[in-house]
Formats: sequence, structure tokens, C-alpha cells
Amino acid sequence: MTETNTKKLHLTAFMRPVSLHTGAWRYPGAYPDANFNLQHLKSFITKLEAAKFDAFFMADHLAVLNMPVEALKRSHTVTSFEPFTLLSALSVVTEKIGLAATASTTYDEPYHIARRFASLDHLSGGRAAWNIVTTGNPESSKNFGRDQHMEHSDRYKRAREFYDVVTGLWDSFADDAFIRDRESGVYFDPDRMHVLDHQGDELRVRGPLNIARPIQGWPVIVQAGQSDPGRQLAAETAEVVFCSPRDLASAKELYADIKGRVVAAGRDRNHLKILPAALVVVGATVEEAKAKRLELDSYVHYDSAIASLSVSLGVDASKFDPDGPLPTELPDTNASKTSRAGVVQLSQTEGLTVRQLAQRYGGYSGLAFVGTPETIADEMAVWLAEEGADGFTVTFPFLPQGLDDVTEKLVPELQRRGLFRKDYEGSTLREHLGLPRPPNRFFE
Amino acid sequence: MTETNTKKLHLTAFMRPVSLHTGAWRYPGAYPDANFNLQHLKSFITKLEAAKFDAFFMADHLAVLNMPVEALKRSHTVTSFEPFTLLSALSVVTEKIGLAATASTTYDEPYHIARRFASLDHLSGGRAAWNIVTTGNPESSKNFGRDQHMEHSDRYKRAREFYDVVTGLWDSFADDAFIRDRESGVYFDPDRMHVLDHQGDELRVRGPLNIARPIQGWPVIVQAGQSDPGRQLAAETAEVVFCSPRDLASAKELYADIKGRVVAAGRDRNHLKILPAALVVVGATVEEAKAKRLELDSYVHYDSAIASLSVSLGVDASKFDPDGPLPTELPDTNASKTSRAGVVQLSQTEGLTVRQLAQRYGGYSGLAFVGTPETIADEMAVWLAEEGADGFTVTFPFLPQGLDDVTEKLVPELQRRGLFRKDYEGSTLREHLGLPRPPNRFFE
Repeated sequence: MTETNTKKLHLTAFMRPVSLHTGAWRYPGAYPDANFNLQHLKSFITKLEAAKFDAFFMADHLAVLNMPVEALKRSHTVTSFEPFTLLSALSVVTEKIGLAATASTTYDEPYHIARRFASLDHLSGGRAAWNIVTTGNPESSKNFGRDQHMEHSDRYKRAREFYDVVTGLWDSFADDAFIRDRESGVYFDPDRMHVLDHQGDELRVRGPLNIARPIQGWPVIVQAGQSDPGRQLAAETAEVVFCSPRDLASAKELYADIKGRVVAAGRDRNHLKILPAALVVVGATVEEAKAKRLELDSYVHYDSAIASLSVSLGVDASKFDPDGPLPTELPDTNASKTSRAGVVQLSQTEGLTVRQLAQRYGGYSGLAFVGTPETIADEMAVWLAEEGADGFTVTFPFLPQGLDDVTEKLVPELQRRGLFRKDYEGSTLREHLGLPRPPNRFFE
Repeated sequence: MTETNTKKLHLTAFMRPVSLHTGAWRYPGAYPDANFNLQHLKSFITKLEAAKFDAFFMADHLAVLNMPVEALKRSHTVTSFEPFTLLSALSVVTEKIGLAATASTTYDEPYHIARRFASLDHLSGGRAAWNIVTTGNPESSKNFGRDQHMEHSDRYKRAREFYDVVTGLWDSFADDAFIRDRESGVYFDPDRMHVLDHQGDELRVRGPLNIARPIQGWPVIVQAGQSDPGRQLAAETAEVVFCSPRDLASAKELYADIKGRVVAAGRDRNHLKILPAALVVVGATVEEAKAKRLELDSYVHYDSAIASLSVSLGVDASKFDPDGPLPTELPDTNASKTSRAGVVQLSQTEGLTVRQLAQRYGGYSGLAFVGTPETIADEMAVWLAEEGADGFTVTFPFLPQGLDDVTEKLVPELQRRGLFRKDYEGSTLREHLGLPRPPNRFFE
């Protein structure tokens, strides 16, 4: 255990106001109105800060997702606060926790993005982070005047250039540009202001940004891509990678690949933190935790759940007996074999009925830690020691109880083992994450 | 005085963090760092709310303004917080005061604008207002990938359509759409959701917005245009007009014209409030107030001030003796005769030197009320009674003292006379302004 005592986990909270799990709003004690209830969000972030989480991370979409109406009408994830307005409000009721907003390089302008993150960084005393997304949801294009969604490779090409422009705009002023000398009447030194004058393939942006350099130099850069261009963009630009490996083996492969690309790009491997997304369900016993998860899944309506299972299996699962086991003989299909094998394995290891399998896939079927504070801490310690992760992007199964279980039970266990901080090391998000403040590319 | 006792003024605060006046940061007691100091802004808005102001109104630019470097380096208005992030933060420390953000229809997307204002309205409990601007500053175009600034008439054509799209997106959900019935598992009624599917000349936006209808139905619509298309857009869409008449006579002409256009557009004339922008300088005597203003003007550097005077006169004023009076014989010029006559009149009525005239034009030369609480209240009462204004968009000469003078001295005098509220009438900005909640165009 000595290695894990020197290396610590980083924990961020990946938030939708009611949880990412589609059944969560029906769980006992949940706040179904949290999408537009600031009081609830204040209480969540206050608890996360008391537990010393690195950051509060707002997921986002730029459209009402395209779902069959039977699923859509049951989903609480359709509408909620917009990230910048919400995080700016929450910055006032917190002092230390990082504030990560999702913002799209496909459907926004670099001048706006640079400005809003710089402003959030100034407002919050250096706690902003930008989750760079290229917006994969094709429905979004129709909300922004385009009939065709931009191709994957074009989106990544634009994202790379967009990043260069935004970081260049953040460097518009040297840190010491603002003299504010009352006597001479000189407010700032124009020699310490840089006009970017970017002329690229995708973007033309003159600058300078009309905002002083952010407190962190640049807000922390977050990326979620797992595709090849996504990994490469992350290796060149990201400081936090939020990914979705299925298990420790695939996490280790991803970790080694991305860290290798970071070094190949000439960067320090410790300046990019890999934080897989994980659902965390805590119980007094492993059985209780599993039962909580099954109860949560049971709130996913069968009509909307069965479609998700059918996609994963590549067959129409609505023909099966919902309360029986998954048939052992499944018809041939073009669906991904890995995906189907995952379903079969899950049905066997957990002994789930077709209904329960459907509800798992309709709710949340990614990486999950389900157990006691001790068993989860054991697992997280292994992921950290074996280089599957530098920490986790935690998803709560339901709120507020699922969050309280983590902050009141799991975090103290991690702290007891020396796996997580007992207090913040500094005041900016970069300091929490052990990341350097980037130099200004135009000024000493 | 009986008429003015039934009709009351509306007051909004037109803010830049250090003041709009370019010399303000050098005034004794000023906060030159307020552009990025949230504590100062919290104290300003808290005082304005205690004085029952209708709204806190953030001015904005989308570029560092194009000025000669000698003027630019002396300007504190170059950089500051971005309006949405700042107002969202300030919403948390206030309960009643309205929050007006400037947002451009030329350089942003209607889906983003609709979403951000709706989110601010939900966060603040119904206090958001949108100052619709078409962005006249040609420098902005270069920050958004365009070599050519969009023509004035094209900007207004797009603005009109943009307004239709944004308000249509706000109406995406009926007020009662979100059922959140735990038992049946139905979160919202899809029959109470409208897909806008806008296909216009300038914009194509599918919708629906991924946010519930704002608390105010629509955030309050503010407009500043004084040109003919600007007045017409205001008459058709605005609920508050923020204008810049030179004096009461021109204000009355503007007031009558815009209210006439409102009625011609089929609207109730009381559903648009005309609030001219006015600098307010309060002193214990009229002489003290005038001296404060002259002191403020004296902080505008002569090198940057003289250029403004030259523009207004249409001649190179740097050739005149700075400490002498304006020469009585001025060379012929193509400059606006109205503009030149204004300078000549000012030089005579206030007996200003060339330097003082230059500093007036380099600082703030628009409508101003300079006097004691009593004389200013007298003037404001006349403007209200004679239909020059429904209230004022107040600009403070310097902060914090100039704001304190208004909230602690002028407002109590207005309240004593029954010209201004002693407490808020309701909780939303629409309620403060006496504006109806707009019906949803798609749902009863």
C-alpha cells in the first residue's frame, strides 16, 4: 500500500441536476425539479466542496435529444440550466472547488468561448475548466442553421484550430499589462497587448480578447474523446481526460496509449490526468449496494428500456419474456460482437432477467463501482496503482442520497487510506490537479 | 404635483464596472480594478437593490475598441467581465433587482441566446432582460471571421428575424408541460412541447429549446436604437427603450414618435417604457455638483480628449490654446452643424476652456443631470410629466461615490415626492416595470 499512499486520486463530479441515470428522478427522496432549482444545486456543490472534490463538471447538450416519444416523455435529461450561467452562479457560493463547463467547438465562436471561460475564471478566482466537445449529436446541427452535421474528421480539424485560437486569445494581455497608474493616467501598457490576427483554414479571428489574462493563465482543458482523433487531440491539448473504459484492462490500454501520445507530443506525462467516468453506488453491504442499483434500474420504464437492449443485442428484445432469463440461443446479427458479448456476460454474472437487463441498458451501463466504502476504495486503489486511472469522474446514481453516500462514506474511507486529500492544496483548479500555469506564448 | 404622484419613474443602472466615463478610474476613491473584482460589483448591486432600482444593466462590446493607442492605453473600458457570467454570479447575491444583459443578434446564434437568457431567468427567479444590439462597432466583425461588417439595414433585418426565433424558442414548452409524475413515470407531456422548425431568410433553427419556458414567459426585451429601423424594431418588439436624447425637447419628439409606432403596431403604449440614458451628478449645492463634474473631466488626458473635440467641431482643435476660450471664428467644415452648435453653446453657457471642452467630449457629453437632489428631482419630474421619459437609464459619473450619492441622496428625495417606489411591487422584473407576462404563442 505504500505506493498508493504517495499517489492520490483526483475526483470530479460529472453532473446533470437530477443525475445522468434516466430512472433517477423517480428514486425515493430524489428532487425531480432540480433542473431549474438552484437551491438543490447549491446544496450539491457545497457538499462536494466539503468533501474536497477537484471539480464540479456540467454535462451538456445543444438540443433536445432525438428519442422515440415514449422514451423522451420519461426523460428528465431533456431540459436544464445552461452551464455558464449555472456555474457562474455556483461560483459565488463556493471558494475552492473547480467549475468545468462543456462548450462546443462546432457550434460556437472562439471569441465567445475564450471570453466566457476567462470571465468565469476571473469570477471564481481561478477555478474554471473547459470541456472541449465537438458535439456528436446530429440533432444539434439543425438548431444552428445547418442541414448536414459536420463530419467527424472535420469537427476534429476545426476543434484543434479552435483550441489554438482560444488559447491565443487568452494570451492577449501579459499578466502585468494592467498598470493602472493614476498619476500618469496610463491604465495599461499597449506593448503588453497582443493582436492575435489568426488566419486559418477554418477560422479567422483578429483579437485581442477584451478581457485580462485568466487567473489560471488558461482555464484547465478537459477532453472526452476516445476515437483516434479524439485521443490525439487530447494528447496534444488536454490536461484532464474524461473517458469511458468498460473495465480495468481496457482502461490500462487507454491510459498507456494516451500517456504515450502525451510524451510523443513533447509534454510531461503528469500534466494530463486520466479520470474514467464511473457510476458509484455505495451500500452498507455489497448486497445492499446491488439492491439499490436494481431498485434504481427498476424506475426505467420497460417501453423505453427495451429499445436500448435491442440495440446492444442487435435483435428485437421485446419478443423475449421480460421476466425470464436472456435466451441462450440468439439469432445472427450484424451488431457489434463485443456489445452482444457484454450483455450475455452481464446476464450470467448478475443473473438478470430480460427486464432487468433492459433497464440496466436504458439507465446506465458503463463502468460502475457498486459496493461498500471498503470494497470500492479497494478497487479504486488498484486502478490507481496499476495505471488504469489518475482518479475518477464520478457519476451519482441518484441525488441527493447517492451523492451523500459518496461524500459521507466513500471519501472518508479514501482519506483514511491516504488515497484522497483531506484539504485542498491550493486555491485554483490547476493547483488541485497539480498542473502548471501555462506560460503566455507572446510575453515573458 | 398630483399627476406625478400617480405616475412613477423607473430607474435602471447602466453599468461598466469602473463607470462609462473614461476619467472615472482616476477619481479619488475609485476602484480602478473593478473590471475583474467581483466584490466591488456585489457591493454596487446590493446598494442599487436596497434603493429599489428596477434593473442592473451591463453594457458590452465584442472587441477592444479601435482607438489611437494614446487614448486606448488610458481607457479602463477595454476589458471587463462578460455579462452573462457576471450577471449570473450577481443573481445569487440579490433577490429582486432586474438583470439586463447586452447580447448581439449579428455575432451570435439564436439558440445560444435563447438558452442563456432562459437559464438566467430561471436562476434569478424571473429577473432577466435582453438588451438586443446589432453591434455597430465594425471591429467586432474581425473577431467573428468576417472581413466586412454587416450593413446597417441587413443587421436590422436579421435582428427582427432573430427576435422571432428567440421568442419562439422560449415558447418551446407550455408552462404546464413538466408533469413529473413519479407513479406513471411520465416526466413531461410531449403534446405540450413545440418544435419551432423556423426556416427564414437569415436563420434556420429547428428547436425545441432544451430549457423550460422562462419564469417571466420571456425575459424583458430592451432596445437602444435611435435610427429609423432602430425605432421601428423597438416599437414592434421592445418593452424598454434606452435612448440618448440631448435635451427635453428632443426627448419628447422621440417619446411621441416611438409611442406612436407602438400603437400603430397594435400594442398598448404602456407596454414599452422609454428610459433615456442620463449621467447623474449629485452635490450638496449645484456649484459643488458642477465642480465634481469638472474634476472628473479633468482626469481625461488632454491628448485623448482633444481628438473627440476635433471630431465634434470638424476642425483640428489641437491648434487652439488649451487654456483659452473656444475661438469665436471657426473655419468652415463639412462636420454636422448640430454637433458644432452644441459645442459652441456648451462653451458659452458653462464658460469652459478648450481643455475643459475637450475633456467633456472625451469623457461623457450626453444628457446629464448635475445638481442637488432637489434640483435633479425637479428636472426628472418635468421629464416624466411632459412625456419626455418614463424614467431613466442612470449612468454614474464615478464609483462608488457617484452611485452612493444617487442611492443615498437622490432616491430618498424622489421617494419623498412619490416619484419612485419605496419597495418593490413584485418579485420579477416584469412586475417592477408593470409589463404583462407574454402569452405562449403555441399553447393556451
